[in-house]
Amino acid sequence: MDPMTVPVHQGTGYPAPFDADVRARKKRKLGDALGLTNFGVNLVALPPGCWSSQRHWHSKQDEFIYIVSGILTLVMNEGERELSAGMVAGFPAGVENGHHLVNTSDADAVYMEVGDRLAGDICEYSDIDMRTQIIEDGKTDRYVHKDGTPY
Amino acid sequence: MDPMTVPVHQGTGYPAPFDADVRARKKRKLGDALGLTNFGVNLVALPPGCWSSQRHWHSKQDEFIYIVSGILTLVMNEGERELSAGMVAGFPAGVENGHHLVNTSDADAVYMEVGDRLAGDICEYSDIDMRTQIIEDGKTDRYVHKDGTPY
Repeated sequence: MDPMTVPVHQGTGYPAPFDADVRARKKRKLGDALGLTNFGVNLVALPPGCWSSQRHWHSKQDEFIYIVSGILTLVMNEGERELSAGMVAGFPAGVENGHHLVNTSDADAVYMEVGDRLAGDICEYSDIDMRTQIIEDGKTDRYVHKDGTPY
Repeated sequence: MDPMTVPVHQGTGYPAPFDADVRARKKRKLGDALGLTNFGVNLVALPPGCWSSQRHWHSKQDEFIYIVSGILTLVMNEGERELSAGMVAGFPAGVENGHHLVNTSDADAVYMEVGDRLAGDICEYSDIDMRTQIIEDGKTDRYVHKDGTPY
């Protein structure tokens, strides 16, 4: 399959004001389009200035990224690092080191992300008063304040 | 991380004579090197004539591939299809359509493969008298004939 045939989803479901820096993100859900369910694979384009997400880490799910084109800045607890095309990074479940990618260059950048879908995962955001909470069905999550109050 | 810093594993654990066509395969286990456990991510180089594997499908595990460079021929029940750099394919768990990649070109080709590690998976080989069987610990598998006799 040619990934360019997969529809683009632009934006984020983050509550305001946390959506602002991620709003220009364009995601193609390749794994879903191919019928995969155990993990997701997305091809993501970030224009200059755009973030991949708010800085976060997952309690149960692993994450992997591969830089397809352009240059992206990986931000973690220990600081920043530039990643160029062909480089990879991994974020093992349960490691409390929030990460995200920021396009600090003046050109578009594209990366591929893989994440599994183990049930009961919680996502903690490092820099803002937000985390996710599993709701009644045991699968879906929602954004809440650190004290559990819903957004 | 630069994938080129990850050690190369050449070859296959297939019993003879099924190893012959896969012997030149070079695999870098990126996910393992990054500390990921829920799924594997490998960067695989196939010289001309080499196969990715024997043609197979998985009972419980999803698979995804992304062509990094070169041209590879995807073989499935319905025939052959050429995949060039940037193209992707997915093989959902339980779909009884054996697949593999063959480098029918005269240049090296490189692809990235992702597969989850759900327990209890069985791998069925389409063209040969082989499948995998889970052994006592419930995690490890081994190669057996279709009738269950070990190789």
